[in-house]
Amino acid sequence: MAGNSFGTLYKVTTFGESHGEALGGIIDGCPPGIQLDFEAIEVDMARRKPGQSAIVTQRKEPDAVQFLSGIFEGKTTGTPIGFIIPNTNQKSDDYSHIKDNYRPSHADYVYDQKYGFRDYRGGGRSSARETASRVVAGAIAKQMLPEIKINAYVSSVGPIHLDTPYQELDFSKIESNPVRCPDEKSAAIMEEYIRDIRKQGDTVGGVVTCVIQNVPVGLGEPVFDKLHAELGKAMLSINAVKGFEYGSGFSGSEMKGSEHNDLYNPDGTTKTNLSGGIQGGISNGMDIYFRVAFKPVATIMQTQDSLDNKGNITPMTGKGRHDPCVVPRAVPIVEAMAAIVLADFYLINKTY
Amino acid sequence: MAGNSFGTLYKVTTFGESHGEALGGIIDGCPPGIQLDFEAIEVDMARRKPGQSAIVTQRKEPDAVQFLSGIFEGKTTGTPIGFIIPNTNQKSDDYSHIKDNYRPSHADYVYDQKYGFRDYRGGGRSSARETASRVVAGAIAKQMLPEIKINAYVSSVGPIHLDTPYQELDFSKIESNPVRCPDEKSAAIMEEYIRDIRKQGDTVGGVVTCVIQNVPVGLGEPVFDKLHAELGKAMLSINAVKGFEYGSGFSGSEMKGSEHNDLYNPDGTTKTNLSGGIQGGISNGMDIYFRVAFKPVATIMQTQDSLDNKGNITPMTGKGRHDPCVVPRAVPIVEAMAAIVLADFYLINKTY
Amino acid sequence: MAGNSFGTLYKVTTFGESHGEALGGIIDGCPPGIQLDFEAIEVDMARRKPGQSAIVTQRKEPDAVQFLSGIFEGKTTGTPIGFIIPNTNQKSDDYSHIKDNYRPSHADYVYDQKYGFRDYRGGGRSSARETASRVVAGAIAKQMLPEIKINAYVSSVGPIHLDTPYQELDFSKIESNPVRCPDEKSAAIMEEYIRDIRKQGDTVGGVVTCVIQNVPVGLGEPVFDKLHAELGKAMLSINAVKGFEYGSGFSGSEMKGSEHNDLYNPDGTTKTNLSGGIQGGISNGMDIYFRVAFKPVATIMQTQDSLDNKGNITPMTGKGRHDPCVVPRAVPIVEAMAAIVLADFYLINKTY
Amino acid sequence: MAGNSFGTLYKVTTFGESHGEALGGIIDGCPPGIQLDFEAIEVDMARRKPGQSAIVTQRKEPDAVQFLSGIFEGKTTGTPIGFIIPNTNQKSDDYSHIKDNYRPSHADYVYDQKYGFRDYRGGGRSSARETASRVVAGAIAKQMLPEIKINAYVSSVGPIHLDTPYQELDFSKIESNPVRCPDEKSAAIMEEYIRDIRKQGDTVGGVVTCVIQNVPVGLGEPVFDKLHAELGKAMLSINAVKGFEYGSGFSGSEMKGSEHNDLYNPDGTTKTNLSGGIQGGISNGMDIYFRVAFKPVATIMQTQDSLDNKGNITPMTGKGRHDPCVVPRAVPIVEAMAAIVLADFYLINKTY
Repeated sequence: MAGNSFGTLYKVTTFGESHGEALGGIIDGCPPGIQLDFEAIEVDMARRKPGQSAIVTQRKEPDAVQFLSGIFEGKTTGTPIGFIIPNTNQKSDDYSHIKDNYRPSHADYVYDQKYGFRDYRGGGRSSARETASRVVAGAIAKQMLPEIKINAYVSSVGPIHLDTPYQELDFSKIESNPVRCPDEKSAAIMEEYIRDIRKQGDTVGGVVTCVIQNVPVGLGEPVFDKLHAELGKAMLSINAVKGFEYGSGFSGSEMKGSEHNDLYNPDGTTKTNLSGGIQGGISNGMDIYFRVAFKPVATIMQTQDSLDNKGNITPMTGKGRHDPCVVPRAVPIVEAMAAIVLADFYLINKTY
Repeated sequence: MAGNSFGTLYKVTTFGESHGEALGGIIDGCPPGIQLDFEAIEVDMARRKPGQSAIVTQRKEPDAVQFLSGIFEGKTTGTPIGFIIPNTNQKSDDYSHIKDNYRPSHADYVYDQKYGFRDYRGGGRSSARETASRVVAGAIAKQMLPEIKINAYVSSVGPIHLDTPYQELDFSKIESNPVRCPDEKSAAIMEEYIRDIRKQGDTVGGVVTCVIQNVPVGLGEPVFDKLHAELGKAMLSINAVKGFEYGSGFSGSEMKGSEHNDLYNPDGTTKTNLSGGIQGGISNGMDIYFRVAFKPVATIMQTQDSLDNKGNITPMTGKGRHDPCVVPRAVPIVEAMAAIVLADFYLINKTY
Repeated sequence: MAGNSFGTLYKVTTFGESHGEALGGIIDGCPPGIQLDFEAIEVDMARRKPGQSAIVTQRKEPDAVQFLSGIFEGKTTGTPIGFIIPNTNQKSDDYSHIKDNYRPSHADYVYDQKYGFRDYRGGGRSSARETASRVVAGAIAKQMLPEIKINAYVSSVGPIHLDTPYQELDFSKIESNPVRCPDEKSAAIMEEYIRDIRKQGDTVGGVVTCVIQNVPVGLGEPVFDKLHAELGKAMLSINAVKGFEYGSGFSGSEMKGSEHNDLYNPDGTTKTNLSGGIQGGISNGMDIYFRVAFKPVATIMQTQDSLDNKGNITPMTGKGRHDPCVVPRAVPIVEAMAAIVLADFYLINKTY
Repeated sequence: MAGNSFGTLYKVTTFGESHGEALGGIIDGCPPGIQLDFEAIEVDMARRKPGQSAIVTQRKEPDAVQFLSGIFEGKTTGTPIGFIIPNTNQKSDDYSHIKDNYRPSHADYVYDQKYGFRDYRGGGRSSARETASRVVAGAIAKQMLPEIKINAYVSSVGPIHLDTPYQELDFSKIESNPVRCPDEKSAAIMEEYIRDIRKQGDTVGGVVTCVIQNVPVGLGEPVFDKLHAELGKAMLSINAVKGFEYGSGFSGSEMKGSEHNDLYNPDGTTKTNLSGGIQGGISNGMDIYFRVAFKPVATIMQTQDSLDNKGNITPMTGKGRHDPCVVPRAVPIVEAMAAIVLADFYLINKTY
């Protein structure tokens, strides 16, 4: 299927392995005339970057994006935007210990089986480093849709949950702490928990909640390309994601229709919003909100059994930099993929 | 986006409104030479059909599928399979009461806003009646993949949950009760609950669990078209779905890496399967399992406020046949969409 | 590739064999609110229909199209338009003489090789009868673009050429004769020639010229989906087409730049139009014109050697109705495919 | 449509303007395990390169391709192959004379109208420099299909035609002269003609003939994605192409069926090959051959009227390096696009 493209009219194609010369991508279909704010792109890149705080991996990736086309005098031209992100330290790590070994819950085994071949330098194409290209494409999509506000934040880390409804949170505080949790008290507990996990040489999962506001009515293309179906696919395509729910989500499955129905106000808005801003697969103008579940990263600093390509079980210990909880760094990736989905549907909706 | 197609090589396109002359679709890309079992298709159609038991809507839809092309002497020919499902009672219902009204949590309002126009006869295109075409396409996809076993069942109805792991269930009992829950005790409680909901004129949601066995290693096309991302999109495109999780799902986000990693056996299988049969977006040969959350159907027999197209709030009571819980009927739809996704990736994987 | 769809936003998918129960298709992406003129659709169907005049095949195909969805109270709804064209006389012909034989220059052999299987009833899927569905989709596309005028006509039949530039022709005369040549004198000679060919039990090819007027500036999506590249693909996908040229075409390859360049008028129009209304793959507002070459139909009433599926060469004579020259009937098909391409690019161009 | 991708399973996406920092592309879907011959890629790049002989533009473009991903230890990995071709002399030319002017028969005017914006540095995205990326993707496609032989050559330059059937030509002589015409006598006359055109400050068009041998039976996906329809689209997407014909082409439209039909040999090959190796849109194993018409390049060194963006007609003379005849340099581009089309259909055909 050549599965490295996403979108129809705002189409993003990415390339690159964690230890190749560079990552990068092509954004095809970005409308012309958008005055780009390159600093805003850098800000999102920095939010995804390793080493940004004490609770994430200390690996160094400068992640400087170079735009090669599609931009002239600071504005998009309507032609494809090609960009690269050089891998500056691609040779610094030693991967000989995993060359012949399949690490548990990594993609090593399936890549070898599917492609008959494996790039054993780190995660290769399956590395989350690929998401840097998504953040670039998403940052530009955001600028294409200045009126739409996308805010994602960490709502749980392992067993620690922030249950406050998003309406009661102050999104301006998301970036005030390294966990990216807008509730400072929860953030402190989560941070403490992650520090403890790091000491154990272990990792932990979590949940990112994303809220999208000021979405025009009408985005989404039933019956297959419903807005939430594309959002779901976009989120599930991010490394380590195990679940997606929007609006009332799984808890909505426990409710009765009389409780779940969102009654109208005379202006077409609704008194409640269990629908999550989407009805019949089409945005209804209310806030869109959804939750994305991330499993713990598979690379741990403890010793675990691995499989070698001769069928032997051998103990193995993770080496190098260790990322106890990727969820704070996943926040800008969730936002980026949401922006890409919205940009695509926004363009399609102009044809009605 | 012309969003009525799904798939790349096994491509399904559907058409039809709940009250038009017929529904139908085109399956393009089905390989030639498959001896079709038409009875098996009818069985899946009957599992989706209204009126099949006392706990679902009593609306009558004969749902007889007519194949018009792509089949010769009982075998697929490799050319597109066109089919229709006539709507025999399309004029029997009276929809004048909703002509100018937007029912809460229906797609009425957004369709009118998006298309500037609304087919007010029932749900129109947004009706779940459209899923009949998906069941046809899925039933053929299943026959294309005879070695793969797909079993879906109801694992919760409203607040009643079946928590038994799927490994301990007997799938042969799924069809033994109208709820499609393989645990007879749970099924009885769920059925009782639905009967009660029906008496209240209310509706209730639930969860379908799906287990796919004997999947070859290698299905899925990273980085965007990961197997679980396409499965997620497919499920989220079904009417009333609010959430999708696979493998450890949301509960996996609470775990540590040392607990979550699936350790290998020497043959490449894994001792545990929190990954849910998919690693890095590619099937690893273990069972694939996922859960799909359905909200309660919006049409209730109680009186609720609706909005008319002049901005007035007016009370409204659902008329006609009432479907207290669609989740049992959603089981074959979940299976069908799973089969369609697998068929597509199966064909793509032949190119490696 | 599942190659039975054409277009991205105005997407047409067709199904059906010459001798199956019905042909048909789905038009996905047609904008809502278009008041359809069903008579105009019938007119185009009649122009394609066999038996319409003495110089085409006398086979009977009523070609009555039935719309099943996507239309409500005479207007398009924005949802997919499903339609079927029943094959009323599908059992009338005897195809036993070709069951085991590959007719020269037919698709019999390649279909058998590719699909391991062959629907031997007439042309099966490779029959030009499939183009009836294209005419339906094209007739609706024309109504979507009322300001654009598409006129195709026969500009050559075998060795007889109409060399008059299209600017000097009266398009209102195209339908005044069975050849669909707007020059009456040429039409008479062509008709006479076709009658002679028919007497010989032979067939002959020809050329259709198509002129598209009032096209807005800006249609076409470089660098791969150039307007003329999609038009070319659309035309080449029609049965029996061997060549496509637009603007100066092949003769332009003999010219010098100083002769070929189209100099501007102050309003952006050009003094000459060797570019054929398209520059850099994008319409420039001038007339688009192109020529499509059709080979002679392979079924002749003379005896020719064929190959049977055991490798024997055996003489064979065509049976049944004979179509000495399909080119007049190809005129509405060329127009239909042009309209489909324009509709797609028209929608895409709304996103700029 | 985001028109910068070509192909479904072997999918090529390109980016880059003539005067941006770099051109490049992504090849998605190339199968894993192909040992790449980088020298062969360089050879094709050199065949397209300006300055390669006295009869083409003397502009300097080193055209060194840098592969950034998808290749490990010299072999393809199955992941996307990203590559760039830096523009080393992007600032050397002075384009101030065309900043406000639309050159006749260039894409300047339509780009400005469509995008509301224009990159006035040379051709921008509409420059034929973009085809360098196609040559890279085609060179890899050729290596994917080592058994298939693709040979293109110049068969006419302006009024000078090589009418010898391709069967009588020695393809090994194509590269023996700067015109890329395998008939040395014709080549000499063509070369002389081009030198004369250059002296006049003019340009001239021509025709490239392409022959593809050893194609397996079965490539092509009717009814829309016929092999020749995709080949036609691919060729028409190349800069300056005005026409495409395959097999008997336009001359076939003058023939009778009794003359045009290709009679079988017992082994399924045909005695003649007016079909051009494709029947019903599917390769039949015979040689595929087609002709591609190129118009003369619009940039001439003579003075011609241009239009400025205020609606004034002003005389203008081409500056800089002048390319009297691009047809010899188009030969590797035609081959590249043919290889890309074949690679895509080759992969798709593996699914049958």
